[in-house]
Amino acid sequence: MTRLMLILRFDGRGYHGWQVQKNAQSVQQTLQDAVEQVTGVRSGIIGCSRTDSGVHADMFCCTTDTNSKLRGEAMVTALNANLPRDIAVYECREMPQDFHPRYSALGKRYIYRIWNDKARNPFQEGLAIHIRRPLDVELLNTAAQDYIGTHDFTSFCSAGSGVQDTVRRVTRCEVAREGLMVTFLVEADGFLYNMVRIMVGTLLEISAGKREYNSIPDIIAAKVRSAAGMTAPACGLMLDKVFYDF
Amino acid sequence: MTRLMLILRFDGRGYHGWQVQKNAQSVQQTLQDAVEQVTGVRSGIIGCSRTDSGVHADMFCCTTDTNSKLRGEAMVTALNANLPRDIAVYECREMPQDFHPRYSALGKRYIYRIWNDKARNPFQEGLAIHIRRPLDVELLNTAAQDYIGTHDFTSFCSAGSGVQDTVRRVTRCEVAREGLMVTFLVEADGFLYNMVRIMVGTLLEISAGKREYNSIPDIIAAKVRSAAGMTAPACGLMLDKVFYDF
Repeated sequence: MTRLMLILRFDGRGYHGWQVQKNAQSVQQTLQDAVEQVTGVRSGIIGCSRTDSGVHADMFCCTTDTNSKLRGEAMVTALNANLPRDIAVYECREMPQDFHPRYSALGKRYIYRIWNDKARNPFQEGLAIHIRRPLDVELLNTAAQDYIGTHDFTSFCSAGSGVQDTVRRVTRCEVAREGLMVTFLVEADGFLYNMVRIMVGTLLEISAGKREYNSIPDIIAAKVRSAAGMTAPACGLMLDKVFYDF
Repeated sequence: MTRLMLILRFDGRGYHGWQVQKNAQSVQQTLQDAVEQVTGVRSGIIGCSRTDSGVHADMFCCTTDTNSKLRGEAMVTALNANLPRDIAVYECREMPQDFHPRYSALGKRYIYRIWNDKARNPFQEGLAIHIRRPLDVELLNTAAQDYIGTHDFTSFCSAGSGVQDTVRRVTRCEVAREGLMVTFLVEADGFLYNMVRIMVGTLLEISAGKREYNSIPDIIAAKVRSAAGMTAPACGLMLDKVFYDF
């Protein structure tokens, strides 16, 4: 058996997240179907992360073990011919047997998009959230710097994750504007359940004047979910990059 | 009666172009329905251009004459509440009675998008065309400079346009790459039927080695449609901006 890593993009609008679920379309299931079509064998696929329903990925990594002789570009082309238009594999490479898409990841980058204009943007439906009042990007970027560092992010973790170790190291956090689009970018060695969406929701409450711009250290220190802001909608979230040491 | 100019964006994937047609959904018809919902009166709407089926607009201008007292932001909000998610008005302003969205336009800018990678991009389905072989953007940009100037663009006009004056002044023409996306940008005082799509199609034939990179002046001089290349698919085309003297 050879361990193949597949790297893909998917538009999450049509899926209930990555993970296989009963009675709901998932990216994992759809990809497994395509792999089975191409290789003739049903095999498990391990992903680099769970993603919530409606969340997108510009770089999602997963592995599957196969006896198929198809490699690289030939496998990419064959899979894409069997995938719907909202999922596309763009790389396939052989990996050592001890490679795991989640445990071998050094970190991830997420981008959250906010269309910030009085009118909604037809091209961003389901890809960015829409906020009418002008956002003070400089203020939000200043506030966001307090996320950087090694912290216990319990306050930014939804219930039901079952994770024991809630310490994560955030290495980069930026709020920026390009025209009418505001983006929140965050890199960390790992993320808790709904962590990015709660980080964004908290910033939006700061922006709305419901919290002080310098309140994030206290929220982190509280170590309780109720201290932080709302969970921002899933559709604005994109897994932008997964980092590995190759 | 007050002449209102409406400025809108639309995702053309769900429409058979701007203009009202029998048995086909058009942007014009959809907007007329929304205006009627808001004002209570069915009134004609004049657009700044026809657009082909599947073509998009980031800035499309049109006018309607109304007795409604709604103005500016209130009209924008009311219209958007009555429009589907793939059309959004973002500006409404009063114009003098002699203003005409097409005849008063000084020029237009179109952008044509090409996703240039082995794998397709799920986020660009119906918004960009997909070309697998790497495009030589420097070569294409050099070739595209020959479009600039005041020329008779008959070779770049599809049959059936009925236009008498086929001379247009192209003021800007650029091919550029941002990552895996290649864009063709063109500004002119006006465009003939399918002109941008034929300009792009001709460049793609140059890129494929079917034509010399310096063949555009001869194609223009030929003044016959058959001298130019294919008409590139509609979905890559976006009306990016309409220029007026205000």
